[in-house]
Amino acid sequence: MKKLIICFLSFAICGQILAQETKTFEAGQDKIKLKFMLNAEGRPIYSLYFAGKTIIEPSSLGMELVNDSSFNRQFEIIGTEKKLVDEQWNPIWGEVRSIKNKYEQLTVQLKQKNVPNRLMNLVFRVFEEGLGFRYEFPKQPGLKYFIVGNELTQFNLTGDHKAFWIPGDYDTNEYSYTTSALSRVDAWEVQKKATDIAVRVVPDQYAVQTPLMLKTANGLYINIHEAAQINYPAMQLHVNRQNFSLSAHLVPDALGNKAYLHAPFNTPWRTILAADNAKSILESKMILNLNEPSVITNTDWIKPMKYVGVWWEMQTGKASWSYADDPDQLSADGNLIPSGKHGANTQNVKRYIDFAAKNGIDGVLVEGWNTGWEDWFGNWKEEVFDFVTPYPDFDLQGISDYAKSKGVKMIMHNETSGSATNYERQLDTAFKLMNTYGYPAVKTGYVGKIIPRGEHHDGQWMVNHYERVAQKAAAHKIMVDVHEPNRPTGLHRTYPNWMASEAARGNEYNAFSDGNHPDHETILPFTRLMGGPMDYTPGIFKLKGYASYAPNRQVHTTLAKQLALYVTLYSPLQMAADLPENYEAKMDAFQFIKDVAIDWDDTKIIEAEPGDYLTIARKAKGTENWFIGAITDEQARVGTIALNFLKKGTKYMAKVYRDADDASWKNNPEAYKIEQYPVTSASVLKLKLAEGGGAAISIIAVQ
Amino acid sequence: MKKLIICFLSFAICGQILAQETKTFEAGQDKIKLKFMLNAEGRPIYSLYFAGKTIIEPSSLGMELVNDSSFNRQFEIIGTEKKLVDEQWNPIWGEVRSIKNKYEQLTVQLKQKNVPNRLMNLVFRVFEEGLGFRYEFPKQPGLKYFIVGNELTQFNLTGDHKAFWIPGDYDTNEYSYTTSALSRVDAWEVQKKATDIAVRVVPDQYAVQTPLMLKTANGLYINIHEAAQINYPAMQLHVNRQNFSLSAHLVPDALGNKAYLHAPFNTPWRTILAADNAKSILESKMILNLNEPSVITNTDWIKPMKYVGVWWEMQTGKASWSYADDPDQLSADGNLIPSGKHGANTQNVKRYIDFAAKNGIDGVLVEGWNTGWEDWFGNWKEEVFDFVTPYPDFDLQGISDYAKSKGVKMIMHNETSGSATNYERQLDTAFKLMNTYGYPAVKTGYVGKIIPRGEHHDGQWMVNHYERVAQKAAAHKIMVDVHEPNRPTGLHRTYPNWMASEAARGNEYNAFSDGNHPDHETILPFTRLMGGPMDYTPGIFKLKGYASYAPNRQVHTTLAKQLALYVTLYSPLQMAADLPENYEAKMDAFQFIKDVAIDWDDTKIIEAEPGDYLTIARKAKGTENWFIGAITDEQARVGTIALNFLKKGTKYMAKVYRDADDASWKNNPEAYKIEQYPVTSASVLKLKLAEGGGAAISIIAVQ
Repeated sequence: MKKLIICFLSFAICGQILAQETKTFEAGQDKIKLKFMLNAEGRPIYSLYFAGKTIIEPSSLGMELVNDSSFNRQFEIIGTEKKLVDEQWNPIWGEVRSIKNKYEQLTVQLKQKNVPNRLMNLVFRVFEEGLGFRYEFPKQPGLKYFIVGNELTQFNLTGDHKAFWIPGDYDTNEYSYTTSALSRVDAWEVQKKATDIAVRVVPDQYAVQTPLMLKTANGLYINIHEAAQINYPAMQLHVNRQNFSLSAHLVPDALGNKAYLHAPFNTPWRTILAADNAKSILESKMILNLNEPSVITNTDWIKPMKYVGVWWEMQTGKASWSYADDPDQLSADGNLIPSGKHGANTQNVKRYIDFAAKNGIDGVLVEGWNTGWEDWFGNWKEEVFDFVTPYPDFDLQGISDYAKSKGVKMIMHNETSGSATNYERQLDTAFKLMNTYGYPAVKTGYVGKIIPRGEHHDGQWMVNHYERVAQKAAAHKIMVDVHEPNRPTGLHRTYPNWMASEAARGNEYNAFSDGNHPDHETILPFTRLMGGPMDYTPGIFKLKGYASYAPNRQVHTTLAKQLALYVTLYSPLQMAADLPENYEAKMDAFQFIKDVAIDWDDTKIIEAEPGDYLTIARKAKGTENWFIGAITDEQARVGTIALNFLKKGTKYMAKVYRDADDASWKNNPEAYKIEQYPVTSASVLKLKLAEGGGAAISIIAVQ
Repeated sequence: MKKLIICFLSFAICGQILAQETKTFEAGQDKIKLKFMLNAEGRPIYSLYFAGKTIIEPSSLGMELVNDSSFNRQFEIIGTEKKLVDEQWNPIWGEVRSIKNKYEQLTVQLKQKNVPNRLMNLVFRVFEEGLGFRYEFPKQPGLKYFIVGNELTQFNLTGDHKAFWIPGDYDTNEYSYTTSALSRVDAWEVQKKATDIAVRVVPDQYAVQTPLMLKTANGLYINIHEAAQINYPAMQLHVNRQNFSLSAHLVPDALGNKAYLHAPFNTPWRTILAADNAKSILESKMILNLNEPSVITNTDWIKPMKYVGVWWEMQTGKASWSYADDPDQLSADGNLIPSGKHGANTQNVKRYIDFAAKNGIDGVLVEGWNTGWEDWFGNWKEEVFDFVTPYPDFDLQGISDYAKSKGVKMIMHNETSGSATNYERQLDTAFKLMNTYGYPAVKTGYVGKIIPRGEHHDGQWMVNHYERVAQKAAAHKIMVDVHEPNRPTGLHRTYPNWMASEAARGNEYNAFSDGNHPDHETILPFTRLMGGPMDYTPGIFKLKGYASYAPNRQVHTTLAKQLALYVTLYSPLQMAADLPENYEAKMDAFQFIKDVAIDWDDTKIIEAEPGDYLTIARKAKGTENWFIGAITDEQARVGTIALNFLKKGTKYMAKVYRDADDASWKNNPEAYKIEQYPVTSASVLKLKLAEGGGAAISIIAVQ
């Protein structure tokens, strides 16, 4: 149900007054104020203020078209419009049951004075927590089909803020975060060292990815990203290290063009959040609000899921995705020679199904079930997978039947190896297969250089591809979990079957590389997750000695922190990523994964500081039960959690999964302690988190 | 049935002798001799001779890989192999019933002396009429996946030959031919003037397209092209205007790369035909012989067709492809507003079906039947057509039923507007629709710049696309006729459902532009048609005053020449391109189109000179009937046709459709005369052809 109140509507008429180009327009909500003007050259200029302090210094806006660099000046204002929107809406699934969407909108209608007198509208939405703005190109005689050469959006910052950043890579978001002053941003230095990422394309030494999390010297938190990235490339940010001006850097196609557009067209929203505390950044639903409502009318089939999968055993080298070692060595009768290490064999898959059934886990993902894995990666090869042919030891029908008999859902895996053209050719058959065998969800993957060759993971063509896949999936009533796409921008509001994406450095790096820093998961919610759920694949219990080829490798968290991630890293698809045998050895701890919800009525950010710590409490959908996750970086700390969000007068039983007193990520990661005691809304918990540690708490209403 | 005789097989062992790099290998057949050697640098060098005269001076061979330019030297010979093949095979359809495939093959196995000691085989097949050679990259440790930067094949000619050429355009073959000395080749000059071709991309000022037809000062005819172009870009030829060396110029992708390959791989065959008379060039089946046999086992459903179509009325401006004039002007209920000019309306289509049924024409093509034509062209727009949604005035089911009741086949039309990615996404539904409604054939089209953007019509990716479409069509038992693809290289042997292509300047240019020169159709058989059948769409009867928007426009042939083209321009799909009403006004002349065969047991080239004249006689499949076409350029001439190919002792009735005595393409193009008289194998016909004129003859056995 949508409640729309337009409180105020004005339409300023163009004329003498508007021709005074220094006239300033303002819009505001609570502490956030926007100012807009045209300068003497007719360039659009905006600035942004938080509680009277400047967040964005006057910054220019505009576009550069291919073969025409003049679409950013010589404008005059031909109209303005203001309105106030205050409405509520309910997501299909999410962190809260109901979302307030309240903003003041200022639309500035611009026209160029020179022929062909092109029109461009700038639309600003000022929320209580920040600003979203976009370019709109109305239907007009002077601009029909056009190609964007560059977007000229600036974000002129006020100082050398602390930044949590990854390089502006066109093809991957899987870097570790660097925390540095803006003046120290050097994307190439980071790129060079990130040898655990196969494809790295960073043409601009000073470009960073969004969401970019910033903290000013005077304690303000700023987050810059975008919302509703549709039919448009990802916006990265070029950092001017001298004057701290950020400018839009769009991911190009093979020809260097940024976007092929057809008026009428609206760009994605450029978003700026500002707050005097870090919690407010995480509480914001502005990016979701800037996305369009669901285009899927019947959403009954969309259901958040917990899942296990034949996956971590491949990541850690215990098993292989491929059936054979060498695609060219065939048996006398022309078949692949099995290596004996193939993970996705029927017997092993049934073991996961049994484990899921026994423990109330909804689904089982199986990677490496289909032919092609012997020679799938790194050769820019167009035709690798057909997405329908199982290996001989994977009994597709038998497994489907078995899972069904056990009440477990199978999750399909479609790795494309970056060959999007090949995937698009097979989409019809791939989704038909999922329907035939009753798979309700698919995990897709885009490892490697993109085909069409010269396109990038984050460019307009691939952005359209991911959307097409989500649409086709919706048509087949399939949920999607996209690995290696562009980073999300809230499109799960519009496509609620687009459950999660990877698009960041996941837990898997702890398996095949030196892993993730202890502060990694304290940064992700402020960066990557601002745009939408991440399939981080938490829940590793065996934290040392799991990688057969690297015996000293270890995860950089404690076990209790792995549990906490189910709350702190929101996703409606949550994997229990470790092997069944590792869970079976610690079923008391696994109880939290069994219990924790994946869809929520409410969310409270208790404590938060990017790069340092994070504590979140969430209320499970349709219940009075709460789940809390608290994590810290490499520093031990005591978390303080006042349970004042609990229902007054209700009695609860808290079960606390915490680091043992002698735990630390480095020396004793698997040491945990489980305690149980009654709590009420008057309780205040003090939780000691180990170095790289955390705590997970279930609070169940008992009356 | 295939009769294979390997007469001779030798395997030279590598060793001391082969290390003598100046050793020359020879292979030959009749008048054609090949010489091969490695020079002192270890570069492969070949030369070619016709009847003792040099055709190709010593010319080097090799490859340049991306990031490695050394794959053309430092070779040593590690083995050679020679064999003689003499076999016969029967095409599914074609110009002759049976084809002799006789050649001597020399395989030279090369290995680079430097690490990684890459292997490359050169395979030469010397036929009686010319040479085919290709590069083979065997499976090897030092070369697995690789990217071709340039192919270094040379064709060093002996002089400033006369050339029949079009520019080396990456996206179109639809130029008028220029006849000039090689030293006068200037592709840019031609490109600049060819404003009737929308997309023209000619980066190399001195590159020409193949097939390149040459004539030497001493009367030798040379034709250079390629065969079996699979998974590899088109080879154009860079002309050195000083020394008459031609060098391979491969069409690149968006990144400038030429081909992404995976060993083992064989390139297409590079072909050189040589003869002392023009007829022998046309008689050659070498290019077909160099293609692989059919991969389609059941070919019963593949049947040559004559067809009419709702098409010329759009080309001439009488009707439109689109249903409405403006996609943005909609009626109150949100529908397109019909312009009243839409050609593909049910009533009009039934008129064509009636005409076809009445006159024994097999099929009816309808263009503009599906939605999208209001805004389809020229904007590099990815999603134009869906290939399944008819306009409201096109009753798909009703028309199919009606055609079926009349014994007429419908031909589908799938225009992609160059958006191959969009077409590939829809292929499954598009072909399913054809099957559902019983369409046995599809005409595809690629007008405009290609998507994936940066790819070209003639590049590797699109070459693979056309092949994929042919394969998918075969899987659905659909014949294909591809407009605006790369020029053919004989793949209709391998895919006999790939009936015809356009890939040259067709008759349509007489409708929407200043048209084709009177010599155009005398050149096409020596150039474009060397690679395979062309859907030229002959048969225009109303030769002046047909273009509503250009009243003075006229076709540059006589009517009798239009008839002759059914014989001189071979295709198993032949359109009768004019309007039914124009045929109904001249049913005596239309009789030839009704009678002429489209599949042949035998073909005799009677008289031929590229750019001047051509007379061909063909024997209709399974009969004793012959059909003759004779054409001339802008010069009137008398053709002499000795009918000694007729069966001795058989009596025939000849029906001659010739230019009236006062006919000329310019002043009196529609004046024809029909004469009928008995002939035998002893008869010699003398036929006067008008300026731009021709003659068509049916010779029916009467006893």
